[in-house]
Amino acid sequence: MSAPAPKPKESLQETLQQVLRILSRHKLVENLIHKQEMPKHELVETIVHKQNLTELEKRLEQLYPADIAFILESLPLDERLTVWELVRPEIEGDVLLEVSDSVRETLLADMDREEILAAAEHLDTDELADLVPDLPQDVMHELMGSLEEEERAELQSALSYADDQVGSVMDFDMVTIRDDVTLEVVLRYLRRFDELPHHTDKLFVVDNDQRIKGVLPIKKLLISDPERGVADVMAHEVVIFRPDEDVGDAAQAFERYDLVSAPVVDSTHKVIGRLTVDMMVDVIREESEAEVLSLGGLKEDEDLFSSVWSSAKNRWPWLALNIVTGIIVSRVIGAFEATTAQIVALAALAPIISGIGGNSGSQTATIIIRAMALGQVTATSTRRLVAKEFGIAMLNGALWGSVLGTVAWLIYGKLGLGLVMAGAMMLNFQVAAGVGLFVPLLMERFGRDPAYGSSVFLTFMTDGMGNLIFYGLATLFLLNAM
Amino acid sequence: MSAPAPKPKESLQETLQQVLRILSRHKLVENLIHKQEMPKHELVETIVHKQNLTELEKRLEQLYPADIAFILESLPLDERLTVWELVRPEIEGDVLLEVSDSVRETLLADMDREEILAAAEHLDTDELADLVPDLPQDVMHELMGSLEEEERAELQSALSYADDQVGSVMDFDMVTIRDDVTLEVVLRYLRRFDELPHHTDKLFVVDNDQRIKGVLPIKKLLISDPERGVADVMAHEVVIFRPDEDVGDAAQAFERYDLVSAPVVDSTHKVIGRLTVDMMVDVIREESEAEVLSLGGLKEDEDLFSSVWSSAKNRWPWLALNIVTGIIVSRVIGAFEATTAQIVALAALAPIISGIGGNSGSQTATIIIRAMALGQVTATSTRRLVAKEFGIAMLNGALWGSVLGTVAWLIYGKLGLGLVMAGAMMLNFQVAAGVGLFVPLLMERFGRDPAYGSSVFLTFMTDGMGNLIFYGLATLFLLNAM
Repeated sequence: MSAPAPKPKESLQETLQQVLRILSRHKLVENLIHKQEMPKHELVETIVHKQNLTELEKRLEQLYPADIAFILESLPLDERLTVWELVRPEIEGDVLLEVSDSVRETLLADMDREEILAAAEHLDTDELADLVPDLPQDVMHELMGSLEEEERAELQSALSYADDQVGSVMDFDMVTIRDDVTLEVVLRYLRRFDELPHHTDKLFVVDNDQRIKGVLPIKKLLISDPERGVADVMAHEVVIFRPDEDVGDAAQAFERYDLVSAPVVDSTHKVIGRLTVDMMVDVIREESEAEVLSLGGLKEDEDLFSSVWSSAKNRWPWLALNIVTGIIVSRVIGAFEATTAQIVALAALAPIISGIGGNSGSQTATIIIRAMALGQVTATSTRRLVAKEFGIAMLNGALWGSVLGTVAWLIYGKLGLGLVMAGAMMLNFQVAAGVGLFVPLLMERFGRDPAYGSSVFLTFMTDGMGNLIFYGLATLFLLNAM
Repeated sequence: MSAPAPKPKESLQETLQQVLRILSRHKLVENLIHKQEMPKHELVETIVHKQNLTELEKRLEQLYPADIAFILESLPLDERLTVWELVRPEIEGDVLLEVSDSVRETLLADMDREEILAAAEHLDTDELADLVPDLPQDVMHELMGSLEEEERAELQSALSYADDQVGSVMDFDMVTIRDDVTLEVVLRYLRRFDELPHHTDKLFVVDNDQRIKGVLPIKKLLISDPERGVADVMAHEVVIFRPDEDVGDAAQAFERYDLVSAPVVDSTHKVIGRLTVDMMVDVIREESEAEVLSLGGLKEDEDLFSSVWSSAKNRWPWLALNIVTGIIVSRVIGAFEATTAQIVALAALAPIISGIGGNSGSQTATIIIRAMALGQVTATSTRRLVAKEFGIAMLNGALWGSVLGTVAWLIYGKLGLGLVMAGAMMLNFQVAAGVGLFVPLLMERFGRDPAYGSSVFLTFMTDGMGNLIFYGLATLFLLNAM
């Protein structure tokens, strides 16, 4: 049996189109059967009906699990389940691992206990660990019971770590060797395997207690004289990870040192697992997606075809928070009703000040959050950063404050209004720099990830302060003069 | 010579602290020498002075190029150059490749022609291709002249592709074999290499014209009987790439199929290069960073220690654009001066409506931009998505519109104002859904990446329309009634 050919992006979209065509034909026939209330044994329709599904099944057989996951995610719920029922049982587990959390839920809901257990059979323990938290309680227990003792121990170990810890993504499949043999022996040892673990670019050299002594890169094994000893050829300097380390830090290390695999060791340096670059790529992708989703105001990833209701709920926390801050800002403006009644132009100009303040603050916050994520923020650099950001705010405040002051002066023909506008702009640039700097720094200090949620507080402050400053200055300087 | 040990993130920050300590000691001594105007040959000071630099140099020798790049990026300009001058010439090229574009500029500016040429000598052609565009014209020509013909051809080929094409990141170093030999022959062939190309997880099997016939995974080579033939063991299904493909699509394919390396072929299927996962990880990281930077309103990555002036310039395009849209929105509000003069409460309430509209629109845009990036948007799914997003907007509009209408009624004691508020809120949710959907779709239609710049236009529309709707409804329904 030859493996299916992976598809580049374009041909994957073509495949999706083909699947959609077959599905719509299938639906047509189904509607026909249904409408005319034909007895199911009417031969012609049933054959056509079956033909479509058989064609679809064949199409799916040529696809990798990741491709099928893509197709499933791109289909509305009813079509998705039609396709899901045609997926070969032996790759169902892999497909479940590839789809997003929200889509996985819809697929699992369609499977009965036996199907789930059958799908799980084809997975390694580290893969099972990803799946288990989404399973119904009783299925999970039955699954645990069906495992061999070693596998169960591995699964429990993997489940004991939080999602953001190395232990939760490590792999238990690896090749370890001793250092007192020749490469020839290693080569012969490897030939006894039916298959090497995926992403094996190095063998872990361990002592009798499974403690890491070094690694033998496959590259070295291949080019060296087989008569040489492992101890002679192996590398002693190894990047190792601890199971309780942050998985994002591990991904950064993989990136920094161009790793393909690396050992995970416990506190006594005993090798207990392995990290591989494919998992780290997923970590990098997930982290960046979570950040973009959170910047866009979404709590979690949405299934493209989830119900209006469940999508709406995903968006409420952010909207509710913004409505509360919006009402508070509105009360700030409301406090200056007397001023606004006399100088109506303020109502038209204030949104510019709060808007630009928010923009400038988010520029500052983006820079500092990035620097923090890279670990570049030290005591010295913080001082410099603060000075620099306030400097930029000063420069930008003077520049854009003058521009906007002049515009306000020209539109309304009142120099005083222009001056207040320019002054408010300059001050709000300082506020924006301050908030953009200190909100992320404070969040980090209190152990929270500054990439999430900084923006709500930032906009609240620049909106509130921007309006307070502008209406306040206008009340102070313009109310009697005009 | 043993390789330096890579550092996990914590110890890397420790190293940074150590470097900072040595640097500040160094600076102290330098200031002393300078202030007292001591003649340079005063022995004691000079020795102390040298000691610090020697200590620093030793510290640097233990670091990987990526670690040194991290240190350099975390240092202010003067300290950065002090450290840069201590970096061993043979790894200067590698460090230049690891630092960000803006930091690379500061380092290159400090090097003379000979230093640059010496650093370039240690790089492969695909690495040179990354560096060359940043070099001064004359150095580039001299560098080109110093290359052998084959290398020059490779470099020119790499330079002929755009930054977002596969050809610009492919590697020319690879191992190709024929399929009519035994694995034993392959093993012996590999032993003739001094070193295998990095990330070699498969050998490319080619015919006499270098056309790809399949791949021999190293895993298979190691576990199979050496007597077997390559043709018998190799995999025929290969993920191949074209040099003009989008590099982001290639990275997605690497992620989807868990690849470590893959051949790049021309239109006749001749192997011309190789992609490796380390480059793809960089691509994924860079794409996500560019998206976050752009969402934060930054044109490009900023050197943490660049001057106030150059950082300010990086932030101007976004601020200028937002000021222009802000002024337009301000004119919309200004058109309703007569209404505002009568109903001052509008000035306090309008920002809530435009603000929430912007938030809701960015939620919609985030979902659709993500779906487009994954290639999940088809004609069928677009129809469904549009219906769903407008449905969510209807639901949210009714919900939050009622909440805010009630709040406005309670605060101002005017039912009419509450109703106008609720109505404006509902309408602006529809506007937000429409803009959030169609701006990204239109941008994609016109060949632009919707992740960049959608947000400015989105906020502009929800601000402008939100105010227009709210002030318009108030003018229509409240002006005579109140």
